[in-house]
Order: sequence, then C-alpha cells, then structure tokens
Amino acid sequence: MQVVITGGAGFLGARLARTLLVAGRLSLAGAPAEAISRITLVDRVAPPADLAGDPRIAVALGDLNDQLAAPDASPWREAAAIFHLAAAVSGECEADFDLGMRSNFAATHALLEKARALGSRPLVVFASSLAVFGDSPEQPLPPVIEDHTLPTPQTSYGIQKFIGEQLMADYTRKGFVRGRSVRLMTVSVRPGRPNGAASGFFSGMIREPLAGLRAACPVPDETPVAIASPARTIEGIVRAAEAGDAEWGPRTALNLPSLATTVGGMAAALERVAGKAATDLLDRAPDPAIRRIVKTWPGHIEARRARGLGLLPDADFETVIRDYVRENPDAVKLLIRA
Amino acid sequence: MQVVITGGAGFLGARLARTLLVAGRLSLAGAPAEAISRITLVDRVAPPADLAGDPRIAVALGDLNDQLAAPDASPWREAAAIFHLAAAVSGECEADFDLGMRSNFAATHALLEKARALGSRPLVVFASSLAVFGDSPEQPLPPVIEDHTLPTPQTSYGIQKFIGEQLMADYTRKGFVRGRSVRLMTVSVRPGRPNGAASGFFSGMIREPLAGLRAACPVPDETPVAIASPARTIEGIVRAAEAGDAEWGPRTALNLPSLATTVGGMAAALERVAGKAATDLLDRAPDPAIRRIVKTWPGHIEARRARGLGLLPDADFETVIRDYVRENPDAVKLLIRA
Repeated sequence: MQVVITGGAGFLGARLARTLLVAGRLSLAGAPAEAISRITLVDRVAPPADLAGDPRIAVALGDLNDQLAAPDASPWREAAAIFHLAAAVSGECEADFDLGMRSNFAATHALLEKARALGSRPLVVFASSLAVFGDSPEQPLPPVIEDHTLPTPQTSYGIQKFIGEQLMADYTRKGFVRGRSVRLMTVSVRPGRPNGAASGFFSGMIREPLAGLRAACPVPDETPVAIASPARTIEGIVRAAEAGDAEWGPRTALNLPSLATTVGGMAAALERVAGKAATDLLDRAPDPAIRRIVKTWPGHIEARRARGLGLLPDADFETVIRDYVRENPDAVKLLIRA
Repeated sequence: MQVVITGGAGFLGARLARTLLVAGRLSLAGAPAEAISRITLVDRVAPPADLAGDPRIAVALGDLNDQLAAPDASPWREAAAIFHLAAAVSGECEADFDLGMRSNFAATHALLEKARALGSRPLVVFASSLAVFGDSPEQPLPPVIEDHTLPTPQTSYGIQKFIGEQLMADYTRKGFVRGRSVRLMTVSVRPGRPNGAASGFFSGMIREPLAGLRAACPVPDETPVAIASPARTIEGIVRAAEAGDAEWGPRTALNLPSLATTVGGMAAALERVAGKAATDLLDRAPDPAIRRIVKTWPGHIEARRARGLGLLPDADFETVIRDYVRENPDAVKLLIRA
C-alpha cells in the first residue's frame, strides 16, 4: 500500500510518517491491514534526516499547488490513502489573505480534483481545525461545543478549513474519494521552532522555558484552550483512516478529543514539572493580534462522536509536558521534578 | 445608485428588477434611500421585453464567469449593490458536477474577487438556499430547522451554496464587500416554463393544471415542503440589502420565512381554487431521482431571525395560488372559484 502525506515534512506530517513506519501496516476504512510499501512526503521543504534515510520514504519536493497542477499523476495515482495536512496556518492567513486562499482553499480543491480525475478513489484524511468554531459578539459560541454545533469561523483560516470540509463531504458523497475530515485541536507541546500559527505560543510557552529560553505568553491566564498532545492528535488522524464506514458515521467533520484547560492552567502544570525557574521565563506581554484570533476559539469541546471511536483526550497537561520532556531530551535544559 | 443583478433575466432576477424599478430607490444597510439610476442585468439570455425597454435597465449578456474574468470593470465597479442570484439549479448540479462547480462555486468566488480587486466594497446579497440543509440516514435533520442548525448538505448544489455563504462571510469580515446571504425557500408558484431544479414540480403541479395541462407530481403527498411565494422571496432579498448592520446581525446566512406544508396540502389548496378539474390533471408518477433530492430537504424551518427583521411567511398556500392567478391571468385557463 502506498500513502501520501501532504505537509509531510512538517511536525505532524513527519510524526505521522514515523508512526506509520513503526506500525508497518495500515487498515483503510475497516479493511484488513496491508503492509505499507511507500510513504511519499509532499512538502516544500525536505523531511527530517531520519525519514529521508528510510527506504520506504519518498520525497516530492515543491509547492503543493504546483505539484497538483503538473500532468504527472505520481504519487497521487498510486496512493491508497492521502493524509492532507499541508496548510498555511492561522496567523499567516489572517495577514496574507491570498496565501491562505491558495494554500488552503485552492489546494484542497485541487487535491480532490486530482483524485477525481485519476479515478483512484483514495481514502483522504483532511486535517481541519477547531478554528472552524469562532466566537463573535454578533454570534456567541455556546459554552460547550458539540458535534452538531454550527461553525461560524472568525478567521480566514477557519473559513478555508470549513470550506475544505464541505468539499471533502461532497467529493465523498459523489464517490470521487473516500473522505474523512478531522478537526484538530490546539496541538501542544510542539517541538522545534515557532511557526506562524496564532496558536504557536501554546507550545512555545512550554517548550522555550524548558530549554532555558524566555517565551511570550501573549494572552491572559484565564484564556481557555482545547489542547491535544501530538500523540493524541496522530492517534485521531490514523483512526480516521482506519474506522469502518458505519462506525465513522456522517460525512461531517469529526471533532477530535481535547483537554479543556487555560493558559494559567498550562503555566501551573509547567511549574509543577520544572519549577518556578520555568515560569519565571514567561513574558506576560499582551499581543492584541494574537489575542484577537485566539479569543474567538472555543475552549471546551465535547467530542462524543470521537469517544464512540475509542478516542480519548489527554488525561492532564502535566503528563503532556512530561511526555514532551521524555521525547525531546536534547531540547530540555531545566531540571525536571519527579 | 447603480445596481447589478446576476441571473437578472431569470424569474427572480427579473421580478427583483421590476420591484426595484417601481420603488425607484433603494436603501443600503440602513443608509438613506437613494434613487436607482441604473440596473444592469447580467445573464446568458436577454431579459423580458418590459425590462429591456426600460431606460434604466442595462443588459450584460454572456456567461457570468467569462464576464467576471474579463478585464472590463463595468458594471461591477459602479455597482453600489450586487444581487447575486445566478446559479445552476439543484437537478443540473447533481447531473453535471462540473457545471455546478463552475456556475456556483467558482462564479461566486470570482464575483467576490472582482469586488475585492476593484476596492468598490459593494453591498452583495447572495441567494443561498434551504438546500444547504440535508437529511441523511447517517445524520438526520432535527424536526425543526432553526437559525443555528448545522447545515449538512446532501446535494452538490447545497454544498456549493453553503461554500458561497462561507466566502461571503469572510470577504465581508475582511471588509472586501458588505455581504448578506439569504437562504431562499422553495419558491412557488413560479410562472413560465420548467427549469432544471429538482424543486421545479412544486410550481409545475400548480401552474400547469391551471393552464389546463397535465403535470407531474413525482413525490408522495406527505412530502413536506417549506414554501415561499415569489412576492415574499423578493421581499426577503430586498430587506437583506436594506437592513442596518446591527439589525442584520451575524454574517451567517439568514433563513427566509416559509410556509410549512406538504405536497398533498398544496394539491388540496389547488382543488379549493380551481376544483377537481385541476387536480385531475396531476400525474402521480414517482420520479426516484427527484425524490432522492427533495426528500433530503427540510419541511419546517423556524425563521426567528427573519421575523426580527419584520419578514413573515405567506399566510396560506391558497392565497399564494390566488396571487399567481391574479398576476398571470393569461396563463390560467381553468375556471377559478371565488
């Protein structure tokens, strides 16, 4: 079985690739698992060295829209499963409207058209986002988001992701692809360097202090956030590919599970793990641009449908931090408490 | 003030144009009403003769996508208000996926991009549809649709309209246009000839018997339907342009009011107006393709937000038929009961 991951060199894409390589096999929509012969990572940048060196990994380097517009049918034609993770992130899309429309709106449409033209009917997992939910004075979000809550996105990123969900649903209904849309929660703790996501500080405020570096905490302590660890996030993405049609249910996007916490709660967990030495490195300087985006996102999402698929949220944020420390020993300079 | 109506030669477009010409003036978003100096009807076909002969009417003949792609900025640049009614209809979009994606998805995006590029910031009223709501075994609709009910379209037409709503919302949030999306109900009684809409029989089953012609009634009597007369529909479209920002509320599309009835209830009203001579002309031959589409649409929509704007549904369907008879005397051959 061949697999394509768009955004395959990104943090989630690379982690998904590693997870699939370790498993060695994948079941699609309830069918018996098959051995994975090749994973093509589609991205503008090269993947991490460990992946580049694996004989089962292929790399398709370049802009996704350009690759989809090219007459070459590879690797799309051979892909039984496509994980579509490539996207411009929230902050970027708010600052550069055309970038978001191209990278999120047009690229998702082009990917679905490519699959349709090839007639290959792949299983496509589309990474949507909790950013489809947006609070506004004219239309406040309910206190708890449920599976059937109406998304009213308040960012271009959220709109583009929500449109992607709609395209996925109709291309699936028409039989062009077998689509599964999952709404990712705020992923924390992301390792590595900051990206342009407005949500980036939710990782940075943990990752940087652990590395002995100062970090911005640009929103008030009481800001609610629906968090999922990298491990839980990848689990949800893989489960979306594997679930049988009946257990998956409707073509509407699935809210993945999340841990409902706050920025203050995250800082407190950081202090329990690494002491005041860590939280002393947090700069509480408000950033209105980030706050404007982040405050529209929901903090409490009841993911009943995901629970029905056996997907559970992280138990607590302290454990999430300790998992990060264990997985990224070289990135941690502070002393960790037992 | 200059106005553009896409689909301006169609039934609703022409009726809207006549309504605006009679009023002679239009208020946009609560501003003082201004005299209408020109209405440009954009359509592939020429408008009815009465409109073509009015000195305030201009005609832009040709494919909408082609017109929007042309470098010529007229009539878009001058338009203070654009009523975007042009669309491929439900049955067509289900039969010809590319047609729908071009006429509904791509054209709406191109129209918004045109306005953005010109920087003219027009008020845009977008005619969406109750077809954004779709019932399916995997995700049944609630018995009553409310303003905040999650659309789960079960047709390509419904998906394309729902995507149009999302684009309208974000182009409005970004300040590129001042957008108002209204979800039209099933319009009946439409005069003239049948179109490719799966809902066409909701008009044909009244219009044709009144003209002494046989008509198909392709779905069971108990099929629910949310009806609005042409007059109420145009009223809603004009109100969407005129409402002030605060009374309009969120950027989410507005469900227009509708009369909840059934196919059997419509036939009974027809019999009250024109006797058994009329209903004897109904052919109760089931059409699975039409039924498959129509049965996914909701029959009962609670339009609270529209009521807040002073918009009310038709009182009863018998009055709707009698209005049709009065407005279209030449199209009625049967004897009408007092």
